Amino acid sequence: MQNSDRITPRKLSGFMELMPEKQLIFDNMRERIQKVFAKNCFSPLDTPVLELANVLLAKSGGEIDKEIYHFYKGDTQLAMRYDLTVPLARFVAMNYDKLTFPFKRYQIGKVYRGEKAQKGRFREFYQCDADIIGNEQLPIVADAECINLIAETFKELNLDVEINISNRNILFGLIENLGYKNKTTEILTILDKLPKIGKEKASEWLKEIQLHYSAINLLIEVCNFNNDSDVVLRKIWNYAENETFKKGVSELKELFTYIKAYGIPNAKLNLGIIRGQNYYTGTIFETYMVGHPDFGAVCAGGRYDNLAEYYTDKKLPGVGMSIGLTRLFDQLDSHNMLGGRELNLTELEIIPLGDTIKHCLELSNYFKSQNISCEVNYDSRSFKSKLREADKKKIPYILVVGENEMATKTYSLKDMVKGTNFNKSKEDCVNTIKNKG
Amino acid sequence: MQNSDRITPRKLSGFMELMPEKQLIFDNMRERIQKVFAKNCFSPLDTPVLELANVLLAKSGGEIDKEIYHFYKGDTQLAMRYDLTVPLARFVAMNYDKLTFPFKRYQIGKVYRGEKAQKGRFREFYQCDADIIGNEQLPIVADAECINLIAETFKELNLDVEINISNRNILFGLIENLGYKNKTTEILTILDKLPKIGKEKASEWLKEIQLHYSAINLLIEVCNFNNDSDVVLRKIWNYAENETFKKGVSELKELFTYIKAYGIPNAKLNLGIIRGQNYYTGTIFETYMVGHPDFGAVCAGGRYDNLAEYYTDKKLPGVGMSIGLTRLFDQLDSHNMLGGRELNLTELEIIPLGDTIKHCLELSNYFKSQNISCEVNYDSRSFKSKLREADKKKIPYILVVGENEMATKTYSLKDMVKGTNFNKSKEDCVNTIKNKG
Repeated sequence: MQNSDRITPRKLSGFMELMPEKQLIFDNMRERIQKVFAKNCFSPLDTPVLELANVLLAKSGGEIDKEIYHFYKGDTQLAMRYDLTVPLARFVAMNYDKLTFPFKRYQIGKVYRGEKAQKGRFREFYQCDADIIGNEQLPIVADAECINLIAETFKELNLDVEINISNRNILFGLIENLGYKNKTTEILTILDKLPKIGKEKASEWLKEIQLHYSAINLLIEVCNFNNDSDVVLRKIWNYAENETFKKGVSELKELFTYIKAYGIPNAKLNLGIIRGQNYYTGTIFETYMVGHPDFGAVCAGGRYDNLAEYYTDKKLPGVGMSIGLTRLFDQLDSHNMLGGRELNLTELEIIPLGDTIKHCLELSNYFKSQNISCEVNYDSRSFKSKLREADKKKIPYILVVGENEMATKTYSLKDMVKGTNFNKSKEDCVNTIKNKG
Repeated sequence: MQNSDRITPRKLSGFMELMPEKQLIFDNMRERIQKVFAKNCFSPLDTPVLELANVLLAKSGGEIDKEIYHFYKGDTQLAMRYDLTVPLARFVAMNYDKLTFPFKRYQIGKVYRGEKAQKGRFREFYQCDADIIGNEQLPIVADAECINLIAETFKELNLDVEINISNRNILFGLIENLGYKNKTTEILTILDKLPKIGKEKASEWLKEIQLHYSAINLLIEVCNFNNDSDVVLRKIWNYAENETFKKGVSELKELFTYIKAYGIPNAKLNLGIIRGQNYYTGTIFETYMVGHPDFGAVCAGGRYDNLAEYYTDKKLPGVGMSIGLTRLFDQLDSHNMLGGRELNLTELEIIPLGDTIKHCLELSNYFKSQNISCEVNYDSRSFKSKLREADKKKIPYILVVGENEMATKTYSLKDMVKGTNFNKSKEDCVNTIKNKG
């Protein structure tokens, strides 16, 4: 075909696409997360990427946020999912009669948000969600189970994190008790920025919205409580008499007894975490990388009163967590923190010399049957350039098979790391490779 | 909220969504396929679901088939991928300089076709693709590698299949030699239907398009060759003198020497397989379930001369295979052929009696650390109903933890299959569960 008929191959911006070496690491992280979710007995779920627009957007009364990808196919308006929570709500409401509660499900899948593309923001990204849904009620121990799942997941990923925990009712109750219930949203918006802007700036802004000096001090004091949960929760018990506040404190107290039972070393109380305004109604948590507050929350979640109220009159309280894996991976990569996670696609490469290729194919099936990932390099390049390339690709072992080796069934196995070279039977090769030398 | 404000939760038709028990089986099949691809040293690739419409549809000059989901976001026309081959071509053309050839990649992902929904047809479905892409040239042994991969994959899935192999050049060359080159498409369309309509009907139709009696007989004879490859290929060598035909025969001959070297018992020559008209240029293969021709081809593929000609002037020959996993799963399910594939999400359920829940949480972490999937049933239902439910969910082991058990650290382990019940330490429980009794 003519050059002029060709289209320049381009990818949409804001869509991650990794080269094989990186994709291997990404997939490995995703599989590890999945393994932990499964070991904790969460059921897998795989909902469609496309949903009926009026169903997906039930919450906003069908109004479509500009971030959402949507379109008509015939007369039907379709939309791409922007999270995994709304599809879960739709699924649970649809299949309520068939499910056993508490229903524990995980879903790892891509979600879509047509945001302005910018560094670290993706329009297509993986979310790894795990939720526990109760029928009518769900005990606080479920919140602890969810927090324990976060701890196990990041341990499996070898990432050092701190899980910060609070309960929305504490600040809600406190603000109500101080007489500022009608300013709750504004106050929380300012307090959310507290770690960034500092105490003085926060005080100033709270003053601007007409809060009393003593109220400001009290709120900022509470937001800075992030010490031992027993001490803090005993101390603040009398800060406010109202029910919401007391509920928040006693739920947190109970939660921490379970957290101690699980023995989660990196879960701590932090009354300064806020999360988004809506949705969450009790326990909330945000997970940060130790030494990397600039990553922001790498995992977050909390308790909600009612998962699926837009679809059903059943009351379905739940607690859930979500990891934005695409973003986390991108951050680790741009901070050069993927080191040590490299994986070998090929453990053994077989290089035929002379007319031995058929024998090599046979051998490759033997090694694969022994659970060694293996391929025959049948390319026409020279032996030297194949060795150079194998070295570049960090393939740990090379088997050289010439006609002599084929006849004697003793092969030359090169350890590319140690630079050693031995003649071995295929069985001995397996032992050497499996025991790494 | 008001009942009248609620939206009926619905899923789009033609989109598969499985209940947890089935999803477990589906995921397990997908993971097994992936494991085989990885063991054969194919690199993982994960391209975006959305592509620029003019890039995705380069082949048709940007013309959009009605099956394709497409839409505008701002000024940009986007389209959802309808296969994994076009994204591969785009990826290889874009990253040509960074890749090592032959480039072997696999991709398992959802693709989208807005077809009319009907039984067994899905609008969103998983494709599992593996391709080997050469730079300028790719030896025939790559075709054998691909066929071996198919054999290994279905073996891993415990599905009994037969891989039928041909080469497009044989019928192309034969038709040309018979003087009907201008009728190639019509002839192949009829021959493609041969297994369904039978010899007589096919002869009749070929007569209708003015083929000579002897030509019809020859074509039908060749299409029925599906015996021992050596015998057939020797026999037909002189059927036509033209180059295309000879190329087809000698490529098949070479291919079968590699297939024999690999020792693929279920690969056989079948000159009657046709595949689609375009795209493939040499070896073609179709995989059928033994005893279930009604499934159609459960995996297919072949050799193509030029992967990415719409994007680059580099010549990139390749060979690849694809499994439509969603459809295959649906067929197995509707034929009740998923039996024996059931998986246990939960290996051990811990039921606390009395005030032992914290101790149970601690225990659950111990069992998970021993690689046993385990959960604490903290639901408020009665002990009896929990047992009934565990039985229904086919959970194999139950650990009952009362206050006495907690004090003595000797727990009551119920084997739900055998109906036995023993008091054991947690370490002994692990042994029992791992050794299934």
